[in-house]
Amino acid sequence: MTDPEGRAAAVRDAIHQRRRAVNEAVPEYLTVEEPERLYEATRYLLDAGGKRLRPTILMLVAESLSADPVEEYRAVTPVDGGDRSPSGTATDSIVAAATGSPQGNGGPVDIMAAAIAIEVIQSFTLIHDDIMDEDDLRRGVAAVHEAYDLETAILAGDTLYAKAFEYLSAVGAPPDRTVRAHDVLARTCTEICEGQALDVDFETRSDVTIEEYRDMIRAKTAVLYGAAAVIPAILLGADDETIEALHRFGIRIGEAFQIQDDLLDLTTPSERLGKRRGSDLIENKQTIVTLHARQQGVDVANLIDTDDASAVSEAEIDAALAELRSVGSIEYARSLAEEFIAESRESLRVLPPGPAREQLEDLAWYLIEREY
Amino acid sequence: MTDPEGRAAAVRDAIHQRRRAVNEAVPEYLTVEEPERLYEATRYLLDAGGKRLRPTILMLVAESLSADPVEEYRAVTPVDGGDRSPSGTATDSIVAAATGSPQGNGGPVDIMAAAIAIEVIQSFTLIHDDIMDEDDLRRGVAAVHEAYDLETAILAGDTLYAKAFEYLSAVGAPPDRTVRAHDVLARTCTEICEGQALDVDFETRSDVTIEEYRDMIRAKTAVLYGAAAVIPAILLGADDETIEALHRFGIRIGEAFQIQDDLLDLTTPSERLGKRRGSDLIENKQTIVTLHARQQGVDVANLIDTDDASAVSEAEIDAALAELRSVGSIEYARSLAEEFIAESRESLRVLPPGPAREQLEDLAWYLIEREY
Repeated sequence: MTDPEGRAAAVRDAIHQRRRAVNEAVPEYLTVEEPERLYEATRYLLDAGGKRLRPTILMLVAESLSADPVEEYRAVTPVDGGDRSPSGTATDSIVAAATGSPQGNGGPVDIMAAAIAIEVIQSFTLIHDDIMDEDDLRRGVAAVHEAYDLETAILAGDTLYAKAFEYLSAVGAPPDRTVRAHDVLARTCTEICEGQALDVDFETRSDVTIEEYRDMIRAKTAVLYGAAAVIPAILLGADDETIEALHRFGIRIGEAFQIQDDLLDLTTPSERLGKRRGSDLIENKQTIVTLHARQQGVDVANLIDTDDASAVSEAEIDAALAELRSVGSIEYARSLAEEFIAESRESLRVLPPGPAREQLEDLAWYLIEREY
Repeated sequence: MTDPEGRAAAVRDAIHQRRRAVNEAVPEYLTVEEPERLYEATRYLLDAGGKRLRPTILMLVAESLSADPVEEYRAVTPVDGGDRSPSGTATDSIVAAATGSPQGNGGPVDIMAAAIAIEVIQSFTLIHDDIMDEDDLRRGVAAVHEAYDLETAILAGDTLYAKAFEYLSAVGAPPDRTVRAHDVLARTCTEICEGQALDVDFETRSDVTIEEYRDMIRAKTAVLYGAAAVIPAILLGADDETIEALHRFGIRIGEAFQIQDDLLDLTTPSERLGKRRGSDLIENKQTIVTLHARQQGVDVANLIDTDDASAVSEAEIDAALAELRSVGSIEYARSLAEEFIAESRESLRVLPPGPAREQLEDLAWYLIEREY
């Protein structure tokens, strides 16, 4: 497909289809139990929307690796075909879980459960990050600690955390694959915490290097994309080469995604962005662009007079953008994102050719072509 | 052993030995990585002390079930003896974890890793609970959100959460057992969150029933004792009857432990308690004792004039205690704890007779005999 408009529309359609499947599955997996207020808080951000990019990637990888065409994400055939025997039913009590949780034998795998696990981990990190960053708005609605309260927000995040591991326990894959998936998810969560700790730390430092910043976004953002790409491959029994290549694919996509977010903040008109253009500059937030500019000798902190944020004019933001452009910082970030996307697409060659791989390639391309 | 003093000393010695082993293992499992401040915060409460009752129970269950005498908690022989083949080595990178994490085949199991997993989950809940309850002191030191800050406390808890699942992934048990242990731990964490949500909710309600309170302490406190008792049995390949009986043992011990805590707050002199005697009454905290008293028509909220907490005299607390005693509330709580302990000890009959089972029986007895 060489027509960029048609290609972008096709990607959006592919994401839209899977987003709809995820949106339907969320209330089925994450049911509202007692205490209701807690469970409503766990659902609040998930119900408010979201692009569902990570579960979409997870589902597309599964589609690409499945031995049969995927008709139902809750029963995807492993790489080696599986033996189709039933993989057990969900259990209720903790002792039943301990003594008879569903463990598969090579039969169909509940890939939707894994997709929901990744999405609830993402939601947990957003809820806790919003507390830490004192952000009151998220996805156009009040943050959970504002809509509910601090206690409920902390607990809602903690509950989602546990639920992710519960979902992964019940995918019905052979147990050695499930243990590996658990291990990847746990290590991923550890790294996300490390990344967020670095991000909080960076706010009080003026000597952050580009390398440190890249390590931070790798941990805070990219590893969850890595997990989304790797976990379906593990659960479906892909070989080590495939798993390693998919990990690289996910990491690079996640890094490019974050850089693109930093760029869009500067270049997309406020009304399309859904927030003030240049808000990172106004709030003095460090990004790959400002870190590069500082390395070129630009006095980034004073690019925009931030004494009165509401008085900042479009012309001032344009002038700042022009200065960032003149020292090559926009071009630097853009090139880095393109390099990452090229690497991520290269990594996809490990997957069998077909529509799912093509959609993953196009999704990677689209992530840095999108304008909001 | 019929001499209560000698028996209590023996229990304390059994706990002390295992506490020392846990204390030595904590820094070996939970190493301080970058970012250092985050990892120091994860270690802060663990290093400040703690009774290590949950890991002690976990280790004693493992000792009781091990086919060989336990010389090293990191290599405990499964129920069926195992085949002694090496169970792999720890892995570093996430891809190595995904493609080659250590999964056992019936050989020795790292029970210490499971014990540390339970202890770090306990520590994570303390850190987050202290934020929610606005408690500034814990184990004689400042709470993590005071010693560090809110952001670091939230993240330290989140990191410990992930670490627990990492440790469980690497115990080297056969993968079907490891998946079950993961599932139990995840469900346990979910229940703890539900219990804490109920506890927070109860603070603003004056119509909490004894049944609701018991459900709350079961979820908030007892299920982690249940997990501590069940997880070693799962990992070592015990049968379903054993696992179910051990779950009951842990739950009952946890419930009795909480009731005993409520009683000690009223009856143990402040200097032994390490905090003001009667502090629950002064702070108007609901306990099994006050809920029972309210059911008997006592105006519990006004048992002590709490306008000036520092002015409350010992005589006032004694008078309140006498009233609670007169309506049978102290006796009610005491009987309930004794009933729970009798049930927990009864459940232990499923274990093979021997010193480890005896120590578990004595530990159960000691929990409601202890005076602080």
